[in-house]
This record gives sequence, structure tokens and C-alpha cells, in this order.
Amino acid sequence: MTRRDRAGSPRNRWRLGAHVVAAWAATVVAAAAADVLPSWKDSGSRAAIVGFVAKTTAVGSPTFVAPAERIAVFDNDGTLWAEQPLYVQALFAFDRVKALAPSHPEWKEREPFRSVLAGDTKAALAGGEHALLELVIASHAGTTTDEFASIVSDWIASARHPTTGRLYTEMVYQPMVELLAYLRANGFATYIVSGGGVEFMRPWAERVYGVPPEQVIGSSIRTRFEVRAGQPVLARLPEVEFIDDGPGKPAGIQARVGRRPVAAFGNSDGDLQMLQWTAGGAGPRLCVYVRHTDAEREWAYDRTSAVGRLDKGLDEARAKGWTIVDMKQDWQREFPGDPTH
Amino acid sequence: MTRRDRAGSPRNRWRLGAHVVAAWAATVVAAAAADVLPSWKDSGSRAAIVGFVAKTTAVGSPTFVAPAERIAVFDNDGTLWAEQPLYVQALFAFDRVKALAPSHPEWKEREPFRSVLAGDTKAALAGGEHALLELVIASHAGTTTDEFASIVSDWIASARHPTTGRLYTEMVYQPMVELLAYLRANGFATYIVSGGGVEFMRPWAERVYGVPPEQVIGSSIRTRFEVRAGQPVLARLPEVEFIDDGPGKPAGIQARVGRRPVAAFGNSDGDLQMLQWTAGGAGPRLCVYVRHTDAEREWAYDRTSAVGRLDKGLDEARAKGWTIVDMKQDWQREFPGDPTH
Repeated sequence: MTRRDRAGSPRNRWRLGAHVVAAWAATVVAAAAADVLPSWKDSGSRAAIVGFVAKTTAVGSPTFVAPAERIAVFDNDGTLWAEQPLYVQALFAFDRVKALAPSHPEWKEREPFRSVLAGDTKAALAGGEHALLELVIASHAGTTTDEFASIVSDWIASARHPTTGRLYTEMVYQPMVELLAYLRANGFATYIVSGGGVEFMRPWAERVYGVPPEQVIGSSIRTRFEVRAGQPVLARLPEVEFIDDGPGKPAGIQARVGRRPVAAFGNSDGDLQMLQWTAGGAGPRLCVYVRHTDAEREWAYDRTSAVGRLDKGLDEARAKGWTIVDMKQDWQREFPGDPTH
Repeated sequence: MTRRDRAGSPRNRWRLGAHVVAAWAATVVAAAAADVLPSWKDSGSRAAIVGFVAKTTAVGSPTFVAPAERIAVFDNDGTLWAEQPLYVQALFAFDRVKALAPSHPEWKEREPFRSVLAGDTKAALAGGEHALLELVIASHAGTTTDEFASIVSDWIASARHPTTGRLYTEMVYQPMVELLAYLRANGFATYIVSGGGVEFMRPWAERVYGVPPEQVIGSSIRTRFEVRAGQPVLARLPEVEFIDDGPGKPAGIQARVGRRPVAAFGNSDGDLQMLQWTAGGAGPRLCVYVRHTDAEREWAYDRTSAVGRLDKGLDEARAKGWTIVDMKQDWQREFPGDPTH
């Protein structure tokens, strides 16, 4: 059964009134939520999500959303996987700088590279976002796109988190992985829309999140088509092409998807414009902030954090009545394999 | 049945050898081709296309391509619809310049705007690509993305071709529309990859070609997120973001799809790098040039045409043994509703 058949076929409408169908669908979906979202507690957050899915998928309901318009967008860092003590991609960039250092003797004398090579993360990041961008560009360019995908695949399969010792792909939020699958099972396309690099996420996003490469939107550096020894390649250049953060997120969604999302999930002020853009459309909308409140099993941070700051976004979420997921209160577990609590 | 079920399920493999299955599948697909590609003559071009589909979709065949990797890319101007005497989007730009002229009194004195307003197309384009780009940027910016989509929708529903008097959407190539549907029925995702503007194609591409917005890749101008009177909008800026032509096509495909196509269709030198990039992957590949040879029912042009020049591409297609579709010889008709010939 295709997405369109399931939603649009007159066969499924029977002869019931729209409100009866909608109420029936809501009951069925709610009953099934415990099965499909097992890591979510029976909370207001889960009810908001399940209620939104029920009302947008109930054929004949005035709030029905055609399957093609069921676009759900997810931030990655801090929304789908952990981002403390630092964005995973920054840690990847540090490792790449170390690996590339023999070919760059000048880095021994030049910040922020010198501090990275000396293992002094704090000093390396003293230059703020500019320093981080410089590290990312220097460590992410200079290969072909195929080579870069291999480098990322090798790294993500072996690198370990500095405090938990886990693989980074073991530090995805199990409730969000379940949510992605739940939305897809209800005909939604689930896009990642991240400030992280698109080519850093694609090699593992399908395996870990079930999100295929064409549904990963992220920041990017320019590439250049070249024919090398008769073989066409795309060379990765040390030039920023697109920063998919803040106001860049709605622009990136429009440029790549061409439809306004009906559901958006983020965790920081960098996601605020994406949630505003989503909320601004006509018809039912679901805007969700995931809030880091679990200092014991994860991290607790918001208004003053350098990584994943949630300040203006939290105010707007409260003012607008958006859903705020309290990780400690609303989730049974954070990471796959964790005990429930 | 989902794309994955159809292709990957062990149920479908029975106990036959792979070569038997492949041969059987090829026979079945070839027999069905006359039904699904009725506007194609029984030619070598059709056989090449049908043979490619047969060998890439035969489960158990060594040339089988997983459904997720079945990416087919199509140029638009001159490949899916007519591009003579001038790109349709240029004609749209001229009409927009005329519509906007009352707000731009300075255009009366300034080329290329002055010539457009005087109805002198040849003089307007005397400045070459630079002049055309200036006209496009001036006429395509200054609105929100939603407003621009409405403007395009209104124009495409009413504007008529200068010599045929048809709607432009009636000047799509019927054999190619059938080919798009045929590939999708065989599990391929069909992307448009055009030098034309992505926001100029999306409002009608799904209705006319069956290609949804998220599978339209094209040139773009920058947008800026703004909140106007409490409503979030994306404002279209007079700045080029991306030119999806020539070497930009493989870069655009990688940035947006993240997979290398297995099939590519173009008609001009601007598509050459896209075809090279497609051909350069491992496994079965299909590279096709549509050649404009039908002066009677369409236009005949190649090596010396200002619009849609096919020169280097034709040489490379012959050297590499790519498929060259001869529109006059290989197609029963050009446009929907045309008599067969």
C-alpha cells in the first residue's frame, strides 16, 4: 500500500461522519502509542505528539494532512543525539586535525591548531565559533566526497565519547529514534535539518535513524567537479557553501524540500526560526523543544550553555504553547540499552 | 507493496538461477514496453532504456540495483520540454520585467531592460548570459517564496508559446513524460536537475511530470528568513545562490541527493558533467542524450545553437557509446495530443 493509497482512498472513508472517524482514529493511535513509543512515559508530551498524528492522519477529518505534505524536520545535535561536552563533529574535526598534522607542519605554530595538537580543547575553542569553523574547514576539505564518506564511516565506527566511552551512535536518544519510526509509520517524511555537516551525517544517518541521504539537510562546504585520471570526482573545497543554522534552517528546508514542514523538533535557539517557520503555516502544526533536564543520565543545560543554548526559544515555546519535552520527566530512558527510570 | 519489499524480498527469488531470472525479467519488461512507452518507436534507444531497467530490477541478477540506489536524473529545458526559441524561464522573466516596469522607471533608460520593454528580444539578449542573468535576478527577487510560487502558477496557467500558441505545459515531450512514469513504476526516483530556477519549476512539476518539489533541483537565488507583522516569510534576494548547470549539476546532485545517479538524461553540453558523473559509478549505468532532429514537429539544432548547444556532449556520447535518442526517428510524437508519425 503506498502512502497515497492509505490516506487518500475513498474506500477508507466508509460512511461515518468526519468527527466520528477522527475520534475513533485518535483512540486507536493513543492505544498504540505505548507499543510504538515504549521509551516515552505516559506524559503530556507524548499525548501532544500522538494527538497531532491522530488528527493529521484521520481521513475525513478537517485537520487531515495529505501524505505528501507530512514533512517533519528534526535538528540533530542535542535533539537526536547528545551534544555534550561538545558537538560530535567538533571532536571529529580535532581527530582529523591530528591525523592531518604531519602534512601541515605550520599548524604547530598556529592557533587554533596548536592547541588541538596539544590536546587543549579549551584553548582551541577560545576563539569561539570562528576558531571552530576554521578547524572544521581545514579538516573537512582536501578530499573527494567519496573519500570523505569513508573517513567519516571509519571514524564513527571506532571513536568513543570522552566521558561515557560509548560509540557516538550509541548516544542517540532512544525515544527520538522511536519517534522517527512512529512518524514514518504514519506517512510522515522525517528530515534531519542540522547545523552539522551534511556529509558528516549521511554515512550513518540511515543505519542509525532510518533517514536516507536525500532527507539529510545540513551545513556544507563547496565541491568542484573534476576529472582525475579519467575518473570524475567531486573535490571538497575549503569554502563555506551554506550554514544550516538559525535563520538558515527555514531557508535550507525551502531550498531542498520545497514544502513547509508541519512538525518540527529542536532543542536550542538555533532551531527557533525552523520552529517559527513551521508554526507559521496554515492547519495543524506541531512544534517541539526537547529540554535537557537530566543531569544524572545525560546533561542538564539551557539558558547559559555554550553548546545548545536554549533561551529565547524556551520563552517563545512557553508563550506560544509549543510542546516542551522534559527529558528527565518524559522519557523512560535516554540512550539505547539504558535501564528505564 | 513498498519499493523495498518488491525488490528485496526473498519470496520473490524462488529457486531459479540468477541468469534465468534476469532473462525472464528482461523478456517481460520488453514485452510491456510498448504498453508503457507508447510514444516511443521500437528503436535501439527504447531497447537500451528497457534493457537497462530489466537488468537493474531483476532480483538475483549481478546487475541488480537496490531500490534506494535507483536514482535517475533529468535535465528539463530541451530534455523534458521545449526550449526554443528561448528558455521558457527567460520568457517568464521578460513578462515579469514588463509587469514590474511601473515600479522601475529607471529600466526605461537601462539595458537590457529597455529592450525587453520595447519588445526587442534580440537586443535584450545581445549582452549574452550576463544580460539574461541580470533580467532573471531583477524579475525573480523582491517577493516572498509563497508569493513567487503564486506568480509562477498564474503565469504558467495562461502564458502561451510565441509560435505554437500552446501553453508551455503542453510543450513537454510526451515520450519523456511516459519514461518518467515508467522508471518510477520500476522503483526509480526521478529527479529534475536543471539550470532553470528551482522555484520556477516546482509549482507545476508535480502536476505535469509527476516529480514532487523535493525532487526538483535547480538554480537558486538566496532567501532570507524574516518575521513580517508576526508572520515568518522567506524573502527572495537579488543574489545568486547556486547555478545548477555544467559542473554545477553533479555538485548539486551530491549536495541534495547524496547518492550518485545510475541513469541520466540530458540534451546539451550543460548536461555533460552530469552524464560523466553518472557514468563514473560502479555497476550498470544509463547515459542518454536527447537529440533535437525534428525540424518539422519541433526544432532541429545541435552544435551551433545558442540555446541548448550539443557539441562536446555529442562527441563524448559517441565515443563512450551512450544512448542518443533521435527525436524524429525514435519518437512517435513530440507533444501530448500530437498525431503519431
